[in-house]
Parts: sequence; C-alpha cells; structure tokens
Amino acid sequence: MEKDLKILAEQYKNELFDNVIPFWMANSVDAESGGFFTCLDRDGKVFDTDKFVWLQGREVWMFASLYNKVEQRAEWLEMALHGARFLLDHGRNPDGDWYFSLNREGKPLVEAYNIFSDCFATMAFGQLSIATGDELYATVAKTTFENILRRSSNPKGKYNKTIAETRPLKGFSLPMILCNLSLEIEHLLPAELVDATIEKCVREVMDVFYNEEMGLILENVGPDGSISDSFEGRLLNPGHAIEAMWFIMDLSVRLKRPELAQKAVKIILRTLQYGWDNEFGGIFYFLDCKGYPPQQLEWDQKLWWVHVETLISLIKGYELTGDKACFDWFEKVHDYTWSHFPDPGKGEWFGYLNRRGEVLLSLKGGKWKGCFHVPRGLFQVWKTLERIENL
Amino acid sequence: MEKDLKILAEQYKNELFDNVIPFWMANSVDAESGGFFTCLDRDGKVFDTDKFVWLQGREVWMFASLYNKVEQRAEWLEMALHGARFLLDHGRNPDGDWYFSLNREGKPLVEAYNIFSDCFATMAFGQLSIATGDELYATVAKTTFENILRRSSNPKGKYNKTIAETRPLKGFSLPMILCNLSLEIEHLLPAELVDATIEKCVREVMDVFYNEEMGLILENVGPDGSISDSFEGRLLNPGHAIEAMWFIMDLSVRLKRPELAQKAVKIILRTLQYGWDNEFGGIFYFLDCKGYPPQQLEWDQKLWWVHVETLISLIKGYELTGDKACFDWFEKVHDYTWSHFPDPGKGEWFGYLNRRGEVLLSLKGGKWKGCFHVPRGLFQVWKTLERIENL
Repeated sequence: MEKDLKILAEQYKNELFDNVIPFWMANSVDAESGGFFTCLDRDGKVFDTDKFVWLQGREVWMFASLYNKVEQRAEWLEMALHGARFLLDHGRNPDGDWYFSLNREGKPLVEAYNIFSDCFATMAFGQLSIATGDELYATVAKTTFENILRRSSNPKGKYNKTIAETRPLKGFSLPMILCNLSLEIEHLLPAELVDATIEKCVREVMDVFYNEEMGLILENVGPDGSISDSFEGRLLNPGHAIEAMWFIMDLSVRLKRPELAQKAVKIILRTLQYGWDNEFGGIFYFLDCKGYPPQQLEWDQKLWWVHVETLISLIKGYELTGDKACFDWFEKVHDYTWSHFPDPGKGEWFGYLNRRGEVLLSLKGGKWKGCFHVPRGLFQVWKTLERIENL
Repeated sequence: MEKDLKILAEQYKNELFDNVIPFWMANSVDAESGGFFTCLDRDGKVFDTDKFVWLQGREVWMFASLYNKVEQRAEWLEMALHGARFLLDHGRNPDGDWYFSLNREGKPLVEAYNIFSDCFATMAFGQLSIATGDELYATVAKTTFENILRRSSNPKGKYNKTIAETRPLKGFSLPMILCNLSLEIEHLLPAELVDATIEKCVREVMDVFYNEEMGLILENVGPDGSISDSFEGRLLNPGHAIEAMWFIMDLSVRLKRPELAQKAVKIILRTLQYGWDNEFGGIFYFLDCKGYPPQQLEWDQKLWWVHVETLISLIKGYELTGDKACFDWFEKVHDYTWSHFPDPGKGEWFGYLNRRGEVLLSLKGGKWKGCFHVPRGLFQVWKTLERIENL
C-alpha cells in the first residue's frame, strides 16, 4: 500500500496547486473594488459581483494558511492581505459584528444576522496574524471570537423567529465550528479559555448532539440533547456530522485522548452507512432520522463539500485508529468524488450534482461555494497521507 | 371539441370530489387538539403534527369555498368551522398578526414574520363570513386585511435582514396576492378601497414587475421596476408569474377590461416558452433571467402547484381570448400533469418531482403543501371548462 499512498498524496497535492489555487488566483481578485469575486461560472468568468462575508473570510484564511503551512510565497500572502483590506474596510457593522453580504463596492446588503460570518472572519484574521505578526489582525480575530462567545446562546439575535418557550432547540453548527476555531486561534487566547471552550464543545458534539441509540449526530436537539419529533429535530446532515469528526480528531491529538478518535470513527462509519446512496452512489445532503420526507427539497443532491469533508475525516480516522474500514470507505468516496466533481482543464471542481451525479449547477463558485472546501480538503488529505506514509 | 370539453370537465370534477376532498376529510382533521394536520404521507398517515398557519387558513378557505360555490353541504361547513376555531383560539399574536406556525396544541412556534399567513387567514375568514353571515368572521377578515395593507411596505417588519439603502428591492408576491385577495373579500370592504387596491396591484403586476423587453415577470425589482443585476433581481418563478395571470384575468372580467386578459395571455405563453423543460417536460421551479445559475438548488424540480396554476391560467386564457395557443398548451400541460402527479387509489397528488418527473418526496401534504392548490385548481378548471362548453 505504501506506493499507493505516495501516488495518492501526489494526486491531492497536484490538484491543489495545478488546478484549484490557480483558478482562484486568476479569477477571484476584484482589483478595482477590492475583495474577492466568488460567483464564477464553469470557466471562471464572474457572473455576479456581490461579496459574501463567509467566502471573503474563507479565501483570506485559505491563502494565509498556505503561506503559514506550505511555503511563504509572497503571492499567497498578497492574496490574503487583499481580502483582509476589504473586510476591514467594509465587513463590520457599528457593533463590530460581521455583515452577511456586501455589494461589489463593500456597502452592506444583508445585516449581521449570521454568526458564521464572524467565525470565518476569526479564522481569516487568526491565520493572518500568524503570517504577519501584525497586532491589528490579532486584535480583530480576538475581539470577533469574544463576540461569538457572547452571542452564542442566541446567535441570530433579534432576527431569531423561533419561539423558544414552545420548543427550545439548539443547533449543531456553532459548537461544531468552535471545536475547529478554538485550535485556529489558540495562539491568541489565554490557555484557560481555550481549554474551557474545547472541553465544552467536545462534550456538546460527542455527548449532547450525538445520539447514542441511533449512533447519529442530530442537527438540532433540546437543551439536554433530547430528540424533538419535528422537522428540525429529526434533521440529519451527514456531511456536517462527518466534517465535525475531523475537528474532533484534531482535538483528540491535541488533548492526547485517543478514545475521542475511536468514537469519531465509529460515528463516521455509522453516518456513512446511513447517508450513502446505495442506488446512485454519493452521500445525501439531508435526511430525516425517522425516514420521513425532509423539508429540504435539495435533500438527495450530492454536494462537493460533503464529499471533500468525508475524505478528510476518513483518512484522518485511518491515520489515528488504523481502522481498515476507514481506508475502504476512503477509496469508495475517493472514487466517487474524483469521477464526479473535477472538471479537467477548466480548474476547480463542480459543487452541485443531482442525485444521479449529473451536474446540477455548472458554477465553480457562488453564494456558498468559494475558495475553501476543495483546497482545504486537498491540503488536509495530502498532508495526512504524507504522515501515514512516514509512520 | 365540445364533447371533449365535457369529458375533460368531468375528469377535473370527479378527481376533486372522488380523490382529493375525501383525502383531506379523512386524514387532516385533528379531533383532539383542533385544526388540521397537513404533514401526511403517501397514504394519508400523519408524520408531523406541527400546524402551519398558511395551510390552516387555506384549508378553511377551501371548504368554505366549496360550501359557498358548489353546494351547502354541512360536512364542508363543519370542516371550515373546525379549522377556524383553532385559528381564532391560537393563530394571532397580541398585535393581531398571524403566527407562521404553531405546535399541535396551538402554542406558537414561529413568529408572525410572514405576511402570507395573514393573507390566507383573510381569505379563510372572508369565505366563512359569506358561508355563515357571522359578523365575527367578517371582522377578523377585515382587520387582518387592514393589517396587511399597513404592513405592505415592509412585510417582514423587524425580521427583515436586507439593507434597503444599498439595494432597494420589492417583491412580486404581495401585489400578486392582493389582486386575488381584493376580490375574495370585496363584500367586506368599501368600494373605493377595493377599487384603489385593485388599480394599484394591477399596475404593479402588469407594468412594474412585468418587464416588457424580456416579456417576463421578475420576482424582485427596484421601486420603479428597474432590473437589479443580482441573484434576487434576476430571479424568475414561472409558476408564480403564470398563477398571477389568472388573478389578473379574473380582474379583467370584473373591470370589463378585456385588454388585460390579452396581455395576461401574452405573458403566460412567453413564460411557458421560457420556463418549459424541453428535455424532460414540465415547468421549471426557478430560473435566472440571464441564464445564470440560480441560488435555489431546487430550481429544476417540477412542483404540483406550478402545473396546477398553469392549467387554470391556460384554460381561463382560452375562455377569455379564444387563443388556440392557450388550448394547445393546456393539453400539453394537462398531459404532463395527469401522467405525473396523481397517485391513483391513494388520494391527493404528489407534490414534488425531480427534473425527470420522478417522485422526489412521496408526501401528499407537508409544511407548504396542503388542501389548496390541487382542489382549487380542479375546481377552477372544471368550472371554466363548463363555462366554455356553455358559451
């Protein structure tokens, strides 16, 4: 298998540097108004100029990460700084919360209702503070992180339309992302805060949202982890649950708690068993844990990020536990992914396939797809394969 | 063609009374907590007990309408009164605005952010006031209608997350539905208010949202009808535009302005030309007016209401203008609809098909599909065919 892993690692690395990063460098820079275009068609042509703060932050993070973790290339740092300038100039409202979207020039279009804008801004400025040592970036990352913690009990604030008295529910996304975020900006926070945040989020993800009986992670649960027999309460997002497991495995290394990785692998394998489409291949986007029709009309589609995140989790699971089932699944998901998402000769990957695996939207970037999951995933799988090979 | 029309009319009438209305009478009544279940699986079994105010109001309206327009059957009136009691007891917040959803017992789950809850409540109590002559129902319909007009410049109120200063946009849904609503409760309003509302809405629909150059109706436009080159501004919803055209044709009869019906037919035919799926048949759910990828991942799906509303508009267009193209399209959409949506032996119709016309969700009712589009459409087509036959 040793030779195979080396070839595999090369495949991920080459795709990252030959087909994906060049696509974003060539097509996403708005030299006139600053920031990044992310709505790019199959060939990389801009079809919409709105700027979505999630994706601005993610692209800054990606280039700063490459600079920090691969090689200190000036062009990568310049990409990150280009996005950071736009975000600093236009991204925040007077309270310091990050807008959801801006127009091309940076005027706000959609209010700061979405706390994940803040999460990706934190990641962006956290990496940039490592890249540059600039105190300004460190401060932005730190204060944004503090705002996230402050808002975490009601992330949507005044835009929250649900009435908690009738049915109190909390969502999986925030504790999940905090597992990752706390490691991303560990260098900026007091050790006690990092430890406490990690401890709390690991418990939430692995005990509260994870339902022992089903062996699955629910997207929304009652305050104590109880199941709500409602559309929200029955919702499964397999890609989301599996993505969270590699954040947990990273923490299992950091905390030296191998049993966390063992449990993560168990959840990954069970989620794949439930979420894999035995008829057409690929992983479903949404499912109902009781098998009822989900609300989401896109439930049966095959999305790029779901498959990319699954590859990361499976290969890390194999690295940390040696479980052969992880590698077998990795090969299966690898084959599906590489035969469906890449667009040879055109750069980047397709994002949205229908159930049969046919291209549903030919865009390479849009409102939710930017320079993030594909390059991060290629990087993570490449590096993990290298580590396994060097064991 | 005369005999054909008679047989066709029977087909619509029989489906209404043999397969659709019995389904809702048998399966949707919550005898314990009041109101209606609408989340019903293929066989009519309840899979979720939440109560969505749109659908509560629509079912009340449907049964009251049958009572008023077909026959004064006590069981139909009792269905309407059953739903009305639940709505009166639980549906409104202290300001008199209608919640979006309630739990089974009637406790509010989602705040009154959605003005269409109020629109369907107005329709429900308007028809019920005709059915019973009860002053209470008339008052509820009237005050709700006044609230809608009061809220119409910012329907989402404090839940509106868009920043109008950057990109002022208004939506098609409200003026469209007011075209219909003003006739629904005409009997309760001062004539001047009805006339003024109709005048304003017809202008909005036919001049402001209708884009002459493209020949299409846009879902969102600037205050003056200008196109916004953004996801929202480029959005087309063919079923929505076509549905609005039968409201306009009803108004053309009421206002004795046949040129309105002529223009409506032109828009219907152009929208079908743009929105019909030449590869797999059926009408797309969402499109981008410039042919770019739309935001909506469900864009290529074939929805029951789109096809039902199109049948109504085409047959009314044929009735009012005699345009043979309307009848040709009617036959084409009729064939697609009847060969894909009904579920013989099980009652009601499927709602959600994928692009190929295969069943995507097997439910008969859900969060958005209730006792409304199918029975209203069957009724409207049946009655219109009868009128054409008797011409």
